[in-house]
Amino acid sequence: MINIGIIGATGYTGLELVRLVQRHPAGQISFLSSRSQAGKLLSQVHPAGPPLPLIRPEDAPLDAVDVVFLCLPHAASIPAAVQALDAGARVIDLSADFRLRDPAVYAQWYGQAHAAPELLAEAVYGLTEYARDELPAARLVANPGCYPTTNLLALGPVLQAGAAAGTIIADAKSGVSGAGRTPKQHTHFVEVADNFSPYKIGRAHRHVPEIEQGLRRWQPDPPALIFAPHLLPVPRGILATIYVPLRPGWDEERLRAVYEQRYQDEPFVQVLPAGEVATLAHVNHTNRCVIGLTVTAGTLILTAALDNLVKGAAGQAVQNMNVMFGRPETEGLL
Amino acid sequence: MINIGIIGATGYTGLELVRLVQRHPAGQISFLSSRSQAGKLLSQVHPAGPPLPLIRPEDAPLDAVDVVFLCLPHAASIPAAVQALDAGARVIDLSADFRLRDPAVYAQWYGQAHAAPELLAEAVYGLTEYARDELPAARLVANPGCYPTTNLLALGPVLQAGAAAGTIIADAKSGVSGAGRTPKQHTHFVEVADNFSPYKIGRAHRHVPEIEQGLRRWQPDPPALIFAPHLLPVPRGILATIYVPLRPGWDEERLRAVYEQRYQDEPFVQVLPAGEVATLAHVNHTNRCVIGLTVTAGTLILTAALDNLVKGAAGQAVQNMNVMFGRPETEGLL
Amino acid sequence: MINIGIIGATGYTGLELVRLVQRHPAGQISFLSSRSQAGKLLSQVHPAGPPLPLIRPEDAPLDAVDVVFLCLPHAASIPAAVQALDAGARVIDLSADFRLRDPAVYAQWYGQAHAAPELLAEAVYGLTEYARDELPAARLVANPGCYPTTNLLALGPVLQAGAAAGTIIADAKSGVSGAGRTPKQHTHFVEVADNFSPYKIGRAHRHVPEIEQGLRRWQPDPPALIFAPHLLPVPRGILATIYVPLRPGWDEERLRAVYEQRYQDEPFVQVLPAGEVATLAHVNHTNRCVIGLTVTAGTLILTAALDNLVKGAAGQAVQNMNVMFGRPETEGLL
Amino acid sequence: MINIGIIGATGYTGLELVRLVQRHPAGQISFLSSRSQAGKLLSQVHPAGPPLPLIRPEDAPLDAVDVVFLCLPHAASIPAAVQALDAGARVIDLSADFRLRDPAVYAQWYGQAHAAPELLAEAVYGLTEYARDELPAARLVANPGCYPTTNLLALGPVLQAGAAAGTIIADAKSGVSGAGRTPKQHTHFVEVADNFSPYKIGRAHRHVPEIEQGLRRWQPDPPALIFAPHLLPVPRGILATIYVPLRPGWDEERLRAVYEQRYQDEPFVQVLPAGEVATLAHVNHTNRCVIGLTVTAGTLILTAALDNLVKGAAGQAVQNMNVMFGRPETEGLL
Repeated sequence: MINIGIIGATGYTGLELVRLVQRHPAGQISFLSSRSQAGKLLSQVHPAGPPLPLIRPEDAPLDAVDVVFLCLPHAASIPAAVQALDAGARVIDLSADFRLRDPAVYAQWYGQAHAAPELLAEAVYGLTEYARDELPAARLVANPGCYPTTNLLALGPVLQAGAAAGTIIADAKSGVSGAGRTPKQHTHFVEVADNFSPYKIGRAHRHVPEIEQGLRRWQPDPPALIFAPHLLPVPRGILATIYVPLRPGWDEERLRAVYEQRYQDEPFVQVLPAGEVATLAHVNHTNRCVIGLTVTAGTLILTAALDNLVKGAAGQAVQNMNVMFGRPETEGLL
Repeated sequence: MINIGIIGATGYTGLELVRLVQRHPAGQISFLSSRSQAGKLLSQVHPAGPPLPLIRPEDAPLDAVDVVFLCLPHAASIPAAVQALDAGARVIDLSADFRLRDPAVYAQWYGQAHAAPELLAEAVYGLTEYARDELPAARLVANPGCYPTTNLLALGPVLQAGAAAGTIIADAKSGVSGAGRTPKQHTHFVEVADNFSPYKIGRAHRHVPEIEQGLRRWQPDPPALIFAPHLLPVPRGILATIYVPLRPGWDEERLRAVYEQRYQDEPFVQVLPAGEVATLAHVNHTNRCVIGLTVTAGTLILTAALDNLVKGAAGQAVQNMNVMFGRPETEGLL
Repeated sequence: MINIGIIGATGYTGLELVRLVQRHPAGQISFLSSRSQAGKLLSQVHPAGPPLPLIRPEDAPLDAVDVVFLCLPHAASIPAAVQALDAGARVIDLSADFRLRDPAVYAQWYGQAHAAPELLAEAVYGLTEYARDELPAARLVANPGCYPTTNLLALGPVLQAGAAAGTIIADAKSGVSGAGRTPKQHTHFVEVADNFSPYKIGRAHRHVPEIEQGLRRWQPDPPALIFAPHLLPVPRGILATIYVPLRPGWDEERLRAVYEQRYQDEPFVQVLPAGEVATLAHVNHTNRCVIGLTVTAGTLILTAALDNLVKGAAGQAVQNMNVMFGRPETEGLL
Repeated sequence: MINIGIIGATGYTGLELVRLVQRHPAGQISFLSSRSQAGKLLSQVHPAGPPLPLIRPEDAPLDAVDVVFLCLPHAASIPAAVQALDAGARVIDLSADFRLRDPAVYAQWYGQAHAAPELLAEAVYGLTEYARDELPAARLVANPGCYPTTNLLALGPVLQAGAAAGTIIADAKSGVSGAGRTPKQHTHFVEVADNFSPYKIGRAHRHVPEIEQGLRRWQPDPPALIFAPHLLPVPRGILATIYVPLRPGWDEERLRAVYEQRYQDEPFVQVLPAGEVATLAHVNHTNRCVIGLTVTAGTLILTAALDNLVKGAAGQAVQNMNVMFGRPETEGLL
């Protein structure tokens, strides 16, 4: 059994993680912590949650667990990760704190110096499908963001193939759980329902440097990226429609072969047949990412979808845990 | 022209009122005020709002307007009403502050003594269809709550006819704008979407004494009331399904005749034909209240619907203004 | 392993059942059939479905399975059940065809004579929590309707206790999947979204005789039932708010003790603590039914919720299968 | 007064048009027709509709009206237009039948030869803001499609300025009313709610040739167009996010000046201030189109929104009628 602690268990990601871990045949919850809700049961915070006690973070028995999942806001994860590692636990961090390898980039986008830059070199960027070799030995895994997971899974093969010719445009749409559980004006039901809103379009969203860092793994000098996120009136799910100008010689058939070869053995990434497009209905409440391909006017149009709380967060975190601990990668996730 | 000031113009009710008044051929907006948003344009607070300036409440030229609409939380309306009346304006208060005639009942349900109890006797309870005689001379109108408007319009005829025999059960369902614009956990999109929740069921909701006060106008000792509100995953609209046990001798045909006679000349209340039920689609974005009647097993089942922001708030307020100022009652509302 | 065939696999209930059975450790899908979609994969009909082939009903190897689930419209289930039973399979029918024990009542409500009335006496009404003794030997199980499951689980204890004093009013609200997958005007997105509609209120819905038959198990001459269903703008979930006038001597505490005793060992029925009400968020995507109790003005107000596709259909069907085949009752359902 | 006939009054566009015309001070409805619903009142088809009679198309008094609005499926409009013109009425056609000037292009995209090609040269393409000079004398107006209106209003200034440098990508999202009122599988509430789906992406949608025809008015050989529509889980509203690579020398400030100059006197087109983006909340239930501009990485990102049933259909039709008949352009539309 893998003994598991979850810090920050009452957000949407934390709740999803608790449910996944409860179903996991080899996972055992040692503790759930919450600064604001300590003393309650999780079921008192979420009608859908199990009746497990929430303890204070400072009471968490870090030395009694094999792995700690951090479901905290950025910046808050850093000291929690240090503490858990010091106590001998392995750490899977679902915040942005260990995703960017360059502390200067972190400081630029997150508005403060990184408090533990020495850990950045060690942290494994846990895009599971591209990190399997590094995960078994990892002490600290940075679980990718929801938009980066979508975009990187969709863009990996075309970049690795060297087929992209110019500016990549990623027009992405996300459900509201991606904005977190703390109530804000823009997540009020009346503001979101019947509405649809772009936000931070261009290069203003914090996931831009994370996506670009990923693209550089495949191509040292990748094309420029324009990223336009939009808020969808749905609780969960991300769909990105991505436009990639192609180098001469690349058509849909050749690209499809590249994608199918890359992902044919992947349990959680599915390349759709010709003529089909990704939708949220393909992926919600699953750990799947589905990808559709269409080529028009010299441009590859990718449609890629995943559930932001599952493959975009808690599900991929469990997938990473499975690989880290030598379990079957799909365990608890089908 | 009627010169109009609106205090508290940035909530959902305030915004709806601004839009109605802007369309009103005889209405002219003199000022909009907002404590929290003063200095901005209304269009900067609401994408759907017009680009009108929001001033501080203390800068409002109360003596330059004919009528002031108060769209404030309860308790806050009392001093604002006193001030506007002192300045010579007539007042239409959309809060609960002047609806209950008995200051002791107000204190019990709103947790504090009423700060201007001398005004309670003067205030006209503005359920327009039942208040037409009092409105032309009124200085201060208490605009009814959204649930009370729905329930009282539906129950008036059966109570006036003396046909009700026992406990009345009002199972009511409201859209989220009824909960106000301030973001709270229970109005977060993710908590509301795909969900449906009873709240304050039984006799716990503050609209219970308001409804009962209304019922007593028609029957000094009315049947007991059970009131069960529910939160619907829609932005606007109220539908109440109301169960009234009937005295012997009352069947659907006889009751229908009573309802049709009472409401046949009402421009904003419509009794549906036999076999039809009220729905939100009948009423949203209109000042209408529709009422369906069915009798089964000795029980009258009323279905009544209205738009909580229009007939349940801002629309009825304009309807009251029309009557107060001698305008055609439907002006600006069709 | 239990070899399983599903007839009518492409409706919402069929799809939910396929997903549950796929996760079931002891379940093995032998075939899925569909008259209209035979030749396709289920994933071609539903993006969320697995890529399993759909065969024609007449090609279904009925003699090779242990149990056949029928997810067909009423009337269509009767010949399919006869055929499967003749082939030696056990049958769990999710339609209404074997729920009513009296063929005259069936004929009255479903507009035609029952084509296999001799099976009605044999069929077990599979409200699992009240049918455990009969299920292990059952050849034919009539899986209860979604509204009846909600109402009967909520009303069982108060009726068994003899505490109900008069007309029971069940104001029920259901998500749209309860109306089936065939597109109709009233299930068009634009008609349902932002709307809320009563339908067949009073005693007009086909679930009335089914609920009443259930009530008579507990009280030979039960109180009259008024049943008012409403269509909620959500994909799934039922919430019923049920009003039961109480005999003298019954208060909330005493009733709560009755409910807690009855359901304390039930894995899928949960009585909520005092002051809490059932919501769809408690139950969606689970096999749970949650029940809240409040007593006001001599009336018990029950709030009861379940997922119409799971505990109200496919989940209860699997629960019944588990009991029929001697498996742990919760297997595959947690 | 303008005497008005509406043919095909029961679809979503027809209903919206009826409501707009009813509010129009100079409009008078002479008849509403419907092939499938003749004999009913419109209120029996739509709870939100007025109780006006629906007659058979063949009974429509075409010679008694000044203008006929055609709200019919494509192909069906052609004979209806011929008949109305022959009877002496002016015609505003809301279908696609008279939008494409080239009958060969019509035949290619709509699968049949055009039945009245001689009218194509005469028909005025009624994008009001760009057609004002032609409308007063027009007998036949082709009301633009919803996607084309959005894209053309957004793209007009940048194309007229000659600032576009390469392939234009229009990622568009539409509410479900755009798919019409006839129930289909893909408009079933359960298929749409919580979902988001691309469809006909690339160059497969029939609005592609219509948009391109419009672009050629401003630039004889415009850049290639990639058009990717998506279905949003909302009843109404279109938002297009459009990416235009810029020629050297064009930055946001310079483009903003171009847009502001072009649209500053337009009552229904609003260029948003720097830093703001278009949303559905800006436009729903209004005749407005709002446009936001952002320049990033040499690319202009336009966000443009309108209500597909109002500015994208019935509202623009009334706007066109106003200009055709010499009325104030905003009459009945504010």
